[in-house]
Parts: sequence; C-alpha cells; structure tokens
Amino acid sequence: MGDLDPVVKKVGLELRPPELGDNRSPEKRVRDALAGKIKDVPVHLPLKISRLLPTLLPDAGYNVSVVLSFDGCGWRICRCTGANEQKRVLGLAVDLGSTSVVFYLLDLETGNTLKTLSQENPQRVHGEDILERIIFAQRGGLGELQRQVVDLFNESAISLCRQVGAEVTDIFFMTVAGNTTMCHFLLGLDPSHICKEPYIPAANRFDFLSPEDLGLKMNPHGCIYVLPNVGSYFGGDLIAGILASMMAEKEEISLLVDVGTNAEVVLGNKDWLVACAGAAGPALEGGILSCGMRAQPGAIERVEISPEDLSVRYKTIEDRPPKGLCGSGIIDLLAAMFEAGLVDQTGKLMIQKDPTRMRQINNEWAYIVATESETAHGEPVYITQSDIKNLIRSKGAMYTILNVVIQSVGITFDDIDNFYVAGAFGNYIDPEKAITIGMLPDIPLDRFKPLGNSAGMGAKRVLLQKDSFARIEDICERITYLEMNVRGDFMNQLTGALFLPHTDLTRFPNVAKRLNLR
Amino acid sequence: MGDLDPVVKKVGLELRPPELGDNRSPEKRVRDALAGKIKDVPVHLPLKISRLLPTLLPDAGYNVSVVLSFDGCGWRICRCTGANEQKRVLGLAVDLGSTSVVFYLLDLETGNTLKTLSQENPQRVHGEDILERIIFAQRGGLGELQRQVVDLFNESAISLCRQVGAEVTDIFFMTVAGNTTMCHFLLGLDPSHICKEPYIPAANRFDFLSPEDLGLKMNPHGCIYVLPNVGSYFGGDLIAGILASMMAEKEEISLLVDVGTNAEVVLGNKDWLVACAGAAGPALEGGILSCGMRAQPGAIERVEISPEDLSVRYKTIEDRPPKGLCGSGIIDLLAAMFEAGLVDQTGKLMIQKDPTRMRQINNEWAYIVATESETAHGEPVYITQSDIKNLIRSKGAMYTILNVVIQSVGITFDDIDNFYVAGAFGNYIDPEKAITIGMLPDIPLDRFKPLGNSAGMGAKRVLLQKDSFARIEDICERITYLEMNVRGDFMNQLTGALFLPHTDLTRFPNVAKRLNLR
Repeated sequence: MGDLDPVVKKVGLELRPPELGDNRSPEKRVRDALAGKIKDVPVHLPLKISRLLPTLLPDAGYNVSVVLSFDGCGWRICRCTGANEQKRVLGLAVDLGSTSVVFYLLDLETGNTLKTLSQENPQRVHGEDILERIIFAQRGGLGELQRQVVDLFNESAISLCRQVGAEVTDIFFMTVAGNTTMCHFLLGLDPSHICKEPYIPAANRFDFLSPEDLGLKMNPHGCIYVLPNVGSYFGGDLIAGILASMMAEKEEISLLVDVGTNAEVVLGNKDWLVACAGAAGPALEGGILSCGMRAQPGAIERVEISPEDLSVRYKTIEDRPPKGLCGSGIIDLLAAMFEAGLVDQTGKLMIQKDPTRMRQINNEWAYIVATESETAHGEPVYITQSDIKNLIRSKGAMYTILNVVIQSVGITFDDIDNFYVAGAFGNYIDPEKAITIGMLPDIPLDRFKPLGNSAGMGAKRVLLQKDSFARIEDICERITYLEMNVRGDFMNQLTGALFLPHTDLTRFPNVAKRLNLR
Repeated sequence: MGDLDPVVKKVGLELRPPELGDNRSPEKRVRDALAGKIKDVPVHLPLKISRLLPTLLPDAGYNVSVVLSFDGCGWRICRCTGANEQKRVLGLAVDLGSTSVVFYLLDLETGNTLKTLSQENPQRVHGEDILERIIFAQRGGLGELQRQVVDLFNESAISLCRQVGAEVTDIFFMTVAGNTTMCHFLLGLDPSHICKEPYIPAANRFDFLSPEDLGLKMNPHGCIYVLPNVGSYFGGDLIAGILASMMAEKEEISLLVDVGTNAEVVLGNKDWLVACAGAAGPALEGGILSCGMRAQPGAIERVEISPEDLSVRYKTIEDRPPKGLCGSGIIDLLAAMFEAGLVDQTGKLMIQKDPTRMRQINNEWAYIVATESETAHGEPVYITQSDIKNLIRSKGAMYTILNVVIQSVGITFDDIDNFYVAGAFGNYIDPEKAITIGMLPDIPLDRFKPLGNSAGMGAKRVLLQKDSFARIEDICERITYLEMNVRGDFMNQLTGALFLPHTDLTRFPNVAKRLNLR
C-alpha cells in the first residue's frame, strides 16, 4: 500500500551542551537539531514540554529521543525522553461502526498491527437502528451517546495498551473512520438534519482534534483525525474504503460498493469520482426477514442446494447449530433456490418442486432451510414468500443504484476493472451468487476483489502514510455526489430489477446461459 | 507604521441556504464562503463552533459574521454570529515589565487604541529586583509568580473591556512583550539558568498559546503570542523595540539602547543586526543612590544649576514636593554639576565651589539638591561622593557597551543615523545631558529619536500587522548576540570611560569645546 511514512515519528537527537559561546536555550537547541532532520515544515513545541527541557536535557546527557506527531500544519513535539529510554510509539485506527467498533493498535515505527479488538457499539442499547439513535439524540441523548463511545474508546485503548505492555500515553495518533451519523455522535454534533430533507450533516470535515476536545485517553499532545464525510449517507467509512482500495490513485476504473441497508457506491479512478447512496432495504442484512439474524455464531452463512436431489447443505458461523440466516447466507439461499427451480424468475415459490421443505407458516408459504431437529432453538430456519419479495426489492434496489451510477458517467459494467464489495457483510458475499440473483452485475468473477474491512484499512493507511490527508482532501474535493432521491429514472429502472436476475436477460448473459433462461 | 493588516479580522458571509441539490453541511458552507475571501491559507474551525452552526445559520438567515484569528498556521474561526449582531473585535497588547505592566486595548477593526492601563507588577512583593524573584521562583515560588501575573492580566482585561462596554471574550488576540525573566514567570518556565553561567533561558521562542494554556480570560478560541527572546538579557521587550523602531527594515544604521540596570543594545539595519547586553549598574535607575527613587510623584526628574550663581532649579513628577531623584534627574544633576564645576573630570566633589550646598552626611561629602525645608519628608535630597562614583561607573559601563558594539562591526558612532533610547526611563533622559557626562556618544542631537514605550509599541504592532511574526522570526534568526562577559577588551575600555565625559576627549569634541575642557 505504498511506503511507510507515518503520521508520527521518533527522532534521535545528539545535542551539544551549552557553553558560554553557545547559550541557546534547551528549546532552541532541540529546534535547531530538528531543523536538520525535518525540512520545510514548522515544528511545534507545546509549552508543557518546553517546561521539561531544562531538566531533561542535562539529565539525559543531551542525548534525547523526540516523538513528533503531524498536527495538520507541521510536526508537534509530543514527547522528549532520554535516548536510551525504551518507549513505544503507537497509533490507534478505529473503524467506528454502528454495530461493532474495531480498534487496531499499530506500532508506528514498524507499521505493524500489534493487536485488534472488536467491540460491540454500546449505543445499541438506544436502538439497533441508526434512526432510533438519532431520535434519542434529538431528545437530549446526544451527550449520552457521545459519552458511551468515548468510554468505549478509552477502555479499549487501555486494554490494548496493557496487552502489549505499553501505556495509553504511548498512543500519539488516532484515526477514526465511521459513517456520518456515528462520527456526529462521537463529536457531539447535532445529527438531526442527517435524516430529513435535504439531508445535511452538521459538518463534512473535521479539523485535527486534541485529546481533551473529546476526553480521549492517549498522549495529551497527540492528535485525533476523524475522516470526513461527503454527505449524510456517504461517510468517513466510505472515504476510508476509497483510500484502502487505492481506486482514486489508479488509471483503471473501479467501483466500490458498501452493501447494507443503504447501498453506498463510489465509481471512478485517479481523474474522476462519482458517489451515490440509496436505500437498498434492510433485507440484505437479514434485518427484517423471518429468520434473519446478524453474523453471529449459529448464523447460516453459506447455503448450497443440490439441483439433482434438492438436498440442502449449509455452513454456520463457528459451526454451531443453526439459529437463523445472515446476509451472505440469504443471498446464497436465494441463488441456490433459483438455480434449483424452487423459485421462478418473479420470485414465486414453486411449492410442488419440493413439497417436503415447503410448509405453510403463519398463513404463508415458506421454504425450510434447517428443520427444527437441526436447529439450536428447536424451531425451523426458513424463508417465506414475503421474505423473498423483500429480498428481491432490496437486491433490485442495489442493482439499480449501481446501474444509475454507471449510466451517470456513460459507461457500462464491462468498463469496470475492479469491483470492490465492502461493508459489514460485503466481504462474505459470494459474488457468483449475488450475480445469479441479479444483485451484482454479470461481469467476470476475477474483477471482484475482496477488500477486507475497508474502513479499518483506510484508517490504518492514514496512520502509516502521511500523504493520506492530502489524498482525502483531494477525494472530497473531486467527488461528485449524485442525490439518488432526486433521480426520476430510478423507479423506472427498479421495476426491471425486481426479477431474478432481471427482466432484461441481455444484462445477465452468463446467468441466462448457465441456467438456460429465456 | 505600515498598513493595517491585523491578526484578527471580521468577515461577513452571505450564505446560500441548503436545498436538495446543495446539501453541503453548515461547516462546509462557511468554509466554502470563506475560501472566496481568504486565499492560500488553511481555515481552522474549532469543534465547539462547528457544533453551533446547524442552529446558528438558519437563525441568522444564513447571513453571518465570522471573526478569524491568525493562529500561526492559518486562520481560526473564533466567533460566528448573525451579521447584524454588534460585537467588538478586540486585541490586547501587553508590555510586561518587572515594575509596571501596561495594557493596551485595541479595536482591531480600526486599529485604534481604545484604552491604556498601567498596573504595578504584583510580583514586586517577592522582590523589587528580578534576581530576588528568580530566587523566590527557585524556592518553589514559580507557580505563585505565574498566578500573580495571570491574575493581573485577567483583572486588567475585565476592567478594560468593561470600560469600553465589551466582554473579555471580545479579546481575540493577546501579544506580550517582556524581558526574558518576566516571560518565563508568565509561562511557568524555570528561570534558574538565566542568572548563572552560561546564562541560558529555558526557552527562546514560544509557540502560539491558547487561553487555557495559561488560564487567561479572553475568547477561548483566541491566541496568545509571547514575543521571543534571543538570550537571558535580550528579551521580547527588546525584540518589540526593534519592531517598533522599524530599524530592521531600514537601509540606514540605527542603534537602540534600553537603559537600565542592564544596558541592552541592538545595532544594525535591514541587512544585519548585532545585539549585546551588559550590566550597567543600578545607579542609572536611581536604585542604589542615597536619595534615588523610582519615577513616581515627588521624584526630581529635571535639574538645572546656573553656572553663574550656582542656583538650583528642579522639576518633580506631578510637581509634588521633592522626595528623591529618579533616573533622568540624576543624569541631569551630574551633567549640571559638571558644567557648573561642582565636580571635576574624575567626579570629585569641588567642596569649595559651593560651600553652602556641600555638607558632610554620614561621614562623607554630599551636594544638597533640595534642602529639608523644601522636601516632602523634611530631609534633604542630595548626592554623595560615593553616589557620584557609582553613577560614573554605571555611565561608563553604558558607554563602553555601546562602544564595544560599535567596534564589533567596525563602524563609529558617526555612522549611526538613528539613535533610539528606550526603556523604563529611557524616554525621559535628556540626550544632551547624557552626552555631557559621557554616557551617550557625542553625536548630533537630532539623531536621537524618542521612541515612547517601545515594548508596548512593538506588542501593538504585532496585533496590527500580521507580517510581524515573520519579521520577528527574521530578526531572531539574523541577530548576532555578543556575549559581553567574554569580551576581554571591555575592562580596558571601561577604565577610560570612568571620567567625565571620558579620558579621550576626542571622543567628545562638542562637550570638550562647550565646556572648554583640555
């Protein structure tokens, strides 16, 4: 991902002791020595550190080690110790998700990730859904939401540092990538307008913050950088994804999509970037389906159905007895059912195809994936006719959003060299299955590139490559944001996508050929 | 003093309200509007102000007024209000002296000084002399000294603002010019090494500070700039003097001298600067003389003696009955006594010249300036033989320091176009009298330029001309500091200067001619 040029660096300084002909102050002595090593940018020396130097320099025999943190304008001296004191130089990258918050503790001298910690977002007690939390914030709960996440940051930083034998004050820099609302909560910014027309965040860009601005436990002279957003539905997590994929630096055209309740898409290359976000519906994340669940132990994440004997094979997370279906399992399931002829192109359940697994539950037909005898809770895991309709609406919306973005710049899906699927469950989607149901476009499978946790990766990249700030500024300036809500052709296009894989089969030639569709 | 380009400015912004096609955040809306008015430098928006914008912008009808303060890197948004709210934009310049602290409240929109307030330095309870205060600081009193001056700043800021109907939060910028030790006390920096070899301050240069760094009452987003020093005996007050005199911007050669217990001298022009400081002795300030006193009401500040009838005429501060002699009075007195033949060239009192005013006091001869019947306290005001010896040593040291500086660059006093005498009592010295006793060189009187309170003027100039920061950096980089203590020829030269006006009368041709000396 490029050369190591971290936002924090340690510099050793061998200073000359003062004498009558050289009565520079300790402060000037340090600055002059640094001037030989740091070019063309100002060096800032906090007063509190300036106060320590007159004692520290002679005690250390004028042989010191200085930790410098980039502060948005120049390098700030954050620590000065004797050269032989062994202390860590750490950075913390945070993927601030609404469900999980993932912390990456990095050694900024080597660039290595020392530890990773995934924590549940404590704000969930005020609503699984972001909208619920926004309403809670509007009713006076913003301070509480902020406190919860700051406490989580502090506990996690302490825990991670303890694990590597360091102190929180060894953390000199923190980068945070989260969606627009999560970042608003962290920063105590009013999120009210995020979810109502014309959907404006309180702020798009945030200056470098100091730990005391937020009450964060780290080196008091260090900096916090919260990645900017370019709209209510296009947050710092996506900006981090663009950075992690390096798509804004490539000649080739890439498309990055974060699959979730909202589909967030960015398309472009080193010359141009177009972004778009739209509601795909919660079905894709398993949220509102009868047996949908989060990607937790016992969730069915992979499903296969034999086209010959219609036998079902599934895999659950951690191989526990099944409890429900998570996002990737749902997509697999619908694709497998479609391939096996258990649903037709409109999504209608073919009851007669497998009467043993088709059952009426709560007055509608359902297909049983795991029977009561197999599951953890003694209830069957199934998908109903309504679930399938919901799912098709969601996958149709997703495809349409992708298509609108593609059309907006006058290219086709074939022009896309890299197709990155990101997001909470994006990494687990099997692109072939997603193509089969018409959620992702029918392009060669090798163009789909796994990206891992793109928000976390982007946040890490900022720590390790100082030029990321300029890249992010550039991305934000260059990006053209298409407001999906104001595009009239969206609804027309959506209609064609409410089919498996699509009413227009020329769009899915490989699926049509493989499944012999007409 | 050049164009008004203050460190704080107010900008009116007429913003477009948000709409579906333009969903920029309030933050971005403000930044974009500013980008059209502020070129090429970053604009910083503190989180606390960012939080206010979503409510403030619609409330103000998107017509706002923004106050920007230069923060050393770019412009920081310190206040945002509705455009029709009438609020002041103030700056405070401080001359931080060891005896008096003078505050200048400036309107930064017009550049006018609204109010001036001179306060006694409360640290005087811990010693009139700087050295006593340094010892007090070393014995654990540094915090107390800092608190005293911070409290004085806060009381004065509140008082000044009240007088002009403003609030302390209307003060967006503070500049402080003081000697090296005073600035150390203000900043809580250890002054221990200032007064012992090799005489090094804890710090030469100070980054822009925020009010909370020092606990100062002003706009919380504003900045404090403490002028740098270039050595223990060449402080920010002198740097301010250089700035006030504009000597570092002129083609002509100027000499600036701050007359006091220490003589601080800077010589140069726009191409080069040489500085020097040395102990002149406290006699010049009236400190250790039998009847010496500070320049307070009742101090004799002007003295004339008729060469014909030897009658004495004097003037006291505020025309009160005399109590003693202050610095300018002492110089006048010695010059007048010398001109009237009451002392010879060695400084010896000519007892027979005026037996009515010559009297033995405490076993030594003294000359009575004001008799017991004239004074406030019923005791005579006089100068003793020892006082005169002290005074001659001090004036000799002063002249020698000037001469060493001049010689160090291979010029003569005749090459000096502007001779600025600054400092607590520098403004009150009559150059002609100072030349007569050989304290100042014998150059045409019109080359002596009054400078006023140069420290205060320099501090004000920083507020009003933003390029002052660069000028000061440049001055500090360019200045060559001569360590007087290590110059061997100082003592030799001093010997010749322990005469009235000097052993070498060719150095004082006009004095020699006027007084018919051989």
